[in-house]
Amino acid sequence: MRKHITGFSNPTVKYLRSLRDKKHRRRTGAFLVEGLRLLEDARVSGRVPTMLVMAEGRATHDLIDRLEGEVEANGGEIVTTTPDILSKITGKSNAQSVVGVFDEFDTALSQIERDRAPIWLVAQDLRDPGNLGTMLRTGDAVGAGGLILIDDCADPFSAEAVRASMGAIFTQGVARARWEEFLPWLRSGPGQLVAASLRDAVPYRGVPYEAPCFILVGNESQGLPETYEMECDLRVTMPMRGRADSLNAAMAGAVLAYEVLASLDA
Amino acid sequence: MRKHITGFSNPTVKYLRSLRDKKHRRRTGAFLVEGLRLLEDARVSGRVPTMLVMAEGRATHDLIDRLEGEVEANGGEIVTTTPDILSKITGKSNAQSVVGVFDEFDTALSQIERDRAPIWLVAQDLRDPGNLGTMLRTGDAVGAGGLILIDDCADPFSAEAVRASMGAIFTQGVARARWEEFLPWLRSGPGQLVAASLRDAVPYRGVPYEAPCFILVGNESQGLPETYEMECDLRVTMPMRGRADSLNAAMAGAVLAYEVLASLDA
Repeated sequence: MRKHITGFSNPTVKYLRSLRDKKHRRRTGAFLVEGLRLLEDARVSGRVPTMLVMAEGRATHDLIDRLEGEVEANGGEIVTTTPDILSKITGKSNAQSVVGVFDEFDTALSQIERDRAPIWLVAQDLRDPGNLGTMLRTGDAVGAGGLILIDDCADPFSAEAVRASMGAIFTQGVARARWEEFLPWLRSGPGQLVAASLRDAVPYRGVPYEAPCFILVGNESQGLPETYEMECDLRVTMPMRGRADSLNAAMAGAVLAYEVLASLDA
Repeated sequence: MRKHITGFSNPTVKYLRSLRDKKHRRRTGAFLVEGLRLLEDARVSGRVPTMLVMAEGRATHDLIDRLEGEVEANGGEIVTTTPDILSKITGKSNAQSVVGVFDEFDTALSQIERDRAPIWLVAQDLRDPGNLGTMLRTGDAVGAGGLILIDDCADPFSAEAVRASMGAIFTQGVARARWEEFLPWLRSGPGQLVAASLRDAVPYRGVPYEAPCFILVGNESQGLPETYEMECDLRVTMPMRGRADSLNAAMAGAVLAYEVLASLDA
């Protein structure tokens, strides 16, 4: 279906703008993806937007033609509008921009198939959406199955997280759970839980990592709660030659994930 | 010296606001540092602001008292102003904020003492100030001596880079140079140049790294120019199990820096 919108007060415009807000995303179960590159990443990963929005008279592009075809074949909507209204939706002034609306993925723990990958990243109380996106990207790089978000993490469907993931939001599994739900789930099957820790920990190199390995990193400023660390099978630490807070959570996760990858491959 | 400012058009206010702009920073050789935590990091590293700015009636704090004492002992200025003017300077609405003005450091290559540290990070055309700050932070974590910025990198003295460095801007050496200047300088003394590369490279693990090791990472989207890579003593690559652009420059630098650190320590 195609439609053209010329009024700022059109309900579709209001709906699209509301998706920049976490509360509305949660209520409608939809999120925005901006930019042709991310939309193409989504398409390649088999994700088709339910709605595609662009400015009237936008320069043509093979990738857009293909996207439009897939959206229509799926019964989705193609919306054209004025550059001004598009800016209102994206919060930016790029008339060449293309925006897609996607259904949020199922983020229940039950959709994590632990045998599907040797590494899984787990973040607890990770508050920065940029860090969250970076962890998704790291997961993609090391061939992880996905990212499990524990307790109060940033929203993986926020524009910033999606952008920082560089498309890995579409290739990595994402689950959300409270710790009280995650721990029994983890223990119901095989899985080594490894904490990136600052206390009572062994050096992170030369440790017997085992697949599926769940790499747990904590909040950016607090680290992991001690009670969580104590439930881990391994607590490992990285050298810190500088100040105590030198390495951020996403960075520590990446260094550790590469170590686990090398260890499992050896 | 103490002074109180009440007018938006005061020249000091204009000067402070102008420092958010790279061109003005470069001309005046000064940069802004915002927030008590960063200012305390600076102080501990022996860097004292030439000017300290805060809102009148700000809550007292031991750290601020100490900062004020050091600024005055150094002949610097303490400026108090209204919360509104402070917001205008910082671009934020936090009346508790404290801002310091620092002289930019000497970023000539000649102040890099290569024997002072086993690892040095080198970035070429790194455009994102957040990535630049993250690399400074990584350098601090691995005990690097500093970060050498090649060609057209982001400004290390921008507010975003300073903030992302989490204070490492004050502990890490920073130099800026064109490649044509850097390469002869490097070859004028001991130093192994290692490129994080995607082509014609050996796996990054089990490689004979040597101190001082200069770890070179390229631009976020383009990577390193081939001619630069060819000048390197080693080209190493990390496994990429996902899409080609999975790992960003700062992340690749961190994983590689930790590998070099472990190798040199072994």
